[in-house]
Amino acid sequence: MDNSKSQVVGQSKISWLINKTNEDWINLAISNPMEILLDHAHCERKAAGVALQLMFRYVSEPGLSEVLSPLAREELEHFERVLSILNARGEKLKKLASPPYGAILAKNIRKDEPLRMLDSFLVAGLIEARSHERMQLLSIHSPDIELSNLYADLLKSEARHFGIYWKLADERFERNDLTSRLQELARVESDALVNMHDKPRMHS
Amino acid sequence: MDNSKSQVVGQSKISWLINKTNEDWINLAISNPMEILLDHAHCERKAAGVALQLMFRYVSEPGLSEVLSPLAREELEHFERVLSILNARGEKLKKLASPPYGAILAKNIRKDEPLRMLDSFLVAGLIEARSHERMQLLSIHSPDIELSNLYADLLKSEARHFGIYWKLADERFERNDLTSRLQELARVESDALVNMHDKPRMHS
Repeated sequence: MDNSKSQVVGQSKISWLINKTNEDWINLAISNPMEILLDHAHCERKAAGVALQLMFRYVSEPGLSEVLSPLAREELEHFERVLSILNARGEKLKKLASPPYGAILAKNIRKDEPLRMLDSFLVAGLIEARSHERMQLLSIHSPDIELSNLYADLLKSEARHFGIYWKLADERFERNDLTSRLQELARVESDALVNMHDKPRMHS
Repeated sequence: MDNSKSQVVGQSKISWLINKTNEDWINLAISNPMEILLDHAHCERKAAGVALQLMFRYVSEPGLSEVLSPLAREELEHFERVLSILNARGEKLKKLASPPYGAILAKNIRKDEPLRMLDSFLVAGLIEARSHERMQLLSIHSPDIELSNLYADLLKSEARHFGIYWKLADERFERNDLTSRLQELARVESDALVNMHDKPRMHS
């Protein structure tokens, strides 16, 4: 299994994730399946929110809504699926304190356009790539068959998402600017996970 | 055709719209089909945004995300459908100055909870009811067969949306508070359309 979430782009292979998730996270997650499931529901909801926010911010950007609207719908569909399993198990959707991960990445999005757009795509892609890596780990290591199957199923469509954000960036920015900025942000992303958050979260 | 967007709730019939849309609006809309179509794309996008915003604001509210997430997906699906017709006709999605309608209604949402929640549901329901009324008019009066069919098709699922917002409110608030507040907001809604906005919009 290749956990670096690479994708082949023309002649080059793009790697999103610098560090692979370690066993400590897997153990924490597997020992707290319902909290991870609840957090995953929030991740899907927030991923839909990010796509919609970009559609609102860049409303006149040609070709953007055409790909982000179906992506948002897919995230919402996943959200509903996770929510129905939560409900079936007697759990309610409720607030969950976020780990610092998302805020650290958001802080690294530059303020001026078009750099803000570039960074927004790359940060969204990085979060998708990490979610995908961890869902894959959950699908393999979860002893709960229903949850293992759930993560395996969601993975199939999630796999495309970081590719969508890459493509959105690649169509609009110089390849060199793109890859060097991705390297910087991928470092931020991996560093944000070095000290594992004490609460079980998708991005602890 | 009943343009008051009534629905039967138990023994009572709830009317959302106080004033019916007049012929001036129909003529303005029919004479500017592409601008109305573009504005309609924005309406669908914004309707998805409202549903998602409520899901984010009231994340722990039992039974709310379960109905608003599918509603948001449906709005996005409609948005994509309208967008594909725009694109097929050589039009791009671009910003369009909004009529004052939405801002007038938003200003009437009270700030303190739980009144804010009640008003948010009712305002969302009122906008859905008006959109539905006008889409029905467009489906009847549009001489462009593709557009007439589009509006007729979208209507079928849009018809449920104001019912969803009514139900969200009715499950959480006293029926008397609900109906008296709906009357007040329905007055605001109808008054906001008395002086027709000079630009062709769904809510001119």
